[in-house]
Amino acid sequence: MTPPPFLDTPEAYTTLFDSVDTFLLDCDGVIYHGPVVVPGVKRVLSLMRARGKKIIFVTNNATKSRRMYKTTFDKLGIEAHENEIFGSGYASAVYMSRILNFPADKRVYVLGEKGLEEELDSVGIKHCGGTDPEDRVFIPSMDFSYFTPDPTVGAVLCGFDSGINYKKLGKAFSYLRDDPNVHFLLTNQDKVFPTHGTFYPGSGSLSAPLVFALQGKREPTIIGKPNKPMMDAIIAEHQFDPARALMVGDNLLTDIAFGNNSGLRTLLVMGGVTQKEQIYGDKPSDILPTFVVESLGDLAVLDGQPAEKTA
Amino acid sequence: MTPPPFLDTPEAYTTLFDSVDTFLLDCDGVIYHGPVVVPGVKRVLSLMRARGKKIIFVTNNATKSRRMYKTTFDKLGIEAHENEIFGSGYASAVYMSRILNFPADKRVYVLGEKGLEEELDSVGIKHCGGTDPEDRVFIPSMDFSYFTPDPTVGAVLCGFDSGINYKKLGKAFSYLRDDPNVHFLLTNQDKVFPTHGTFYPGSGSLSAPLVFALQGKREPTIIGKPNKPMMDAIIAEHQFDPARALMVGDNLLTDIAFGNNSGLRTLLVMGGVTQKEQIYGDKPSDILPTFVVESLGDLAVLDGQPAEKTA
Repeated sequence: MTPPPFLDTPEAYTTLFDSVDTFLLDCDGVIYHGPVVVPGVKRVLSLMRARGKKIIFVTNNATKSRRMYKTTFDKLGIEAHENEIFGSGYASAVYMSRILNFPADKRVYVLGEKGLEEELDSVGIKHCGGTDPEDRVFIPSMDFSYFTPDPTVGAVLCGFDSGINYKKLGKAFSYLRDDPNVHFLLTNQDKVFPTHGTFYPGSGSLSAPLVFALQGKREPTIIGKPNKPMMDAIIAEHQFDPARALMVGDNLLTDIAFGNNSGLRTLLVMGGVTQKEQIYGDKPSDILPTFVVESLGDLAVLDGQPAEKTA
Repeated sequence: MTPPPFLDTPEAYTTLFDSVDTFLLDCDGVIYHGPVVVPGVKRVLSLMRARGKKIIFVTNNATKSRRMYKTTFDKLGIEAHENEIFGSGYASAVYMSRILNFPADKRVYVLGEKGLEEELDSVGIKHCGGTDPEDRVFIPSMDFSYFTPDPTVGAVLCGFDSGINYKKLGKAFSYLRDDPNVHFLLTNQDKVFPTHGTFYPGSGSLSAPLVFALQGKREPTIIGKPNKPMMDAIIAEHQFDPARALMVGDNLLTDIAFGNNSGLRTLLVMGGVTQKEQIYGDKPSDILPTFVVESLGDLAVLDGQPAEKTA
């Protein structure tokens, strides 16, 4: 496979920029690194808006709702609108609502945080589990004889849940064990999540007990990048021409695979989780982007402003 | 592959019985089903003792120590001695102590119950985590900035832990992430455990978050059946001639694979987790025992006692 072009001239940036109407942007690693905005990116976002480009922020983090993400963007001084934000939590809610047509009289048993519950609320899907103290306060025990399953539960949805415990895993497992019609959904299957300059078990790791226990019996539908349901949910809400869309990300396994799988062109940015040798080394990755740039912020030169305004 | 013989005559039982000096016996499904002793099994165990056979009870359950198992056997009215009992918890302790030569000044971070801690104590291995309330009482949070790793931790050992939470998973993950010399051990990788006539996520499911998060970076050593470390640990403690030993179990994937992998003959009992069609059906399992009997209790006819003494 020919390695993808590394774009590093204003001419190359212009050609790419002009060929795109819709930018799907991963957040952490592209727009910011934790609390630090990537230099130049605010100017690039302004330029996109000035030129009438559509922006969709696409993130696998399901712990925050769009409302919470908006607050994060506000704090970082980045213009963003709730309807531009698409987290895997909201994608899960949209997928259940519009694609599964999840019944209004059913509820979903949630492993997840407040942000995920908020997104289910936003589309009118009833839920239980989640941040309910009843399930989060747990006396260690292997005894489930106290547990009477709720017959209205029609799905189990697993996101990142810092309050994970055996009670919640056991309840979720019971629903999936006892009824093949109960949907089994994961917001995403990220192995780890980055925080404080290191990383800890991610959403996919916290649903691994259910996936492992049910192996060979039940397979989950995985919503988040790189999987198709995330794109189906985005397209259900935002119509755009895939031929004139670009997925921008720092992660080959999630962002770039996601764009590639959906027939979009993809732009890999360095400075995140991918090393250059994974693209240009002797043994390149099986998953390659259409283009590579050092940073999305480098496209800031296209706005004709003086470079010192970079931040 | 020729299907294994189904033994159902006193002559067949005698030939088998006389060819065995050491019986390795799975417990749940062979000796008892939960609180109910399998009919005839007490007589068979008495006969083994009368004929000078060596008995080793081999179980993957790591939540109980040998001492606790002895109590269970006592309650069921089954003669058993602590030194005949080999759970995957004790096997893990023996493996660490005798095969890894785990240093006396190091400690192991435990995901597990009191029984596992007790077995580590029994071989003099220091531990932390486990049932320590400090780790079991958890306020849901993704923030690990409070956590200062203990530099003496040289291993992470995961068994069934009903007090599993993100704090423990995060701490265990940190040790494995930061130091490739920290051993990564699972007492066993059972998907589910049976209880109250149904089943819930098992030990292997509870370690799945760590296995998944570290996939491609760290592989665990799995101690319990069907894996070799369990047999290495048993042999380190009990010398016996494999050619005159028999592994008896109800589970093809754990018990029978365990015996087969170790070059022992194997005896499958029905009435547990295996269906006859998995052996004698059109599409038999890849893992087959040397022999099949309906129940270990059926060998009670060999003691010449009247049948009414069956229980």
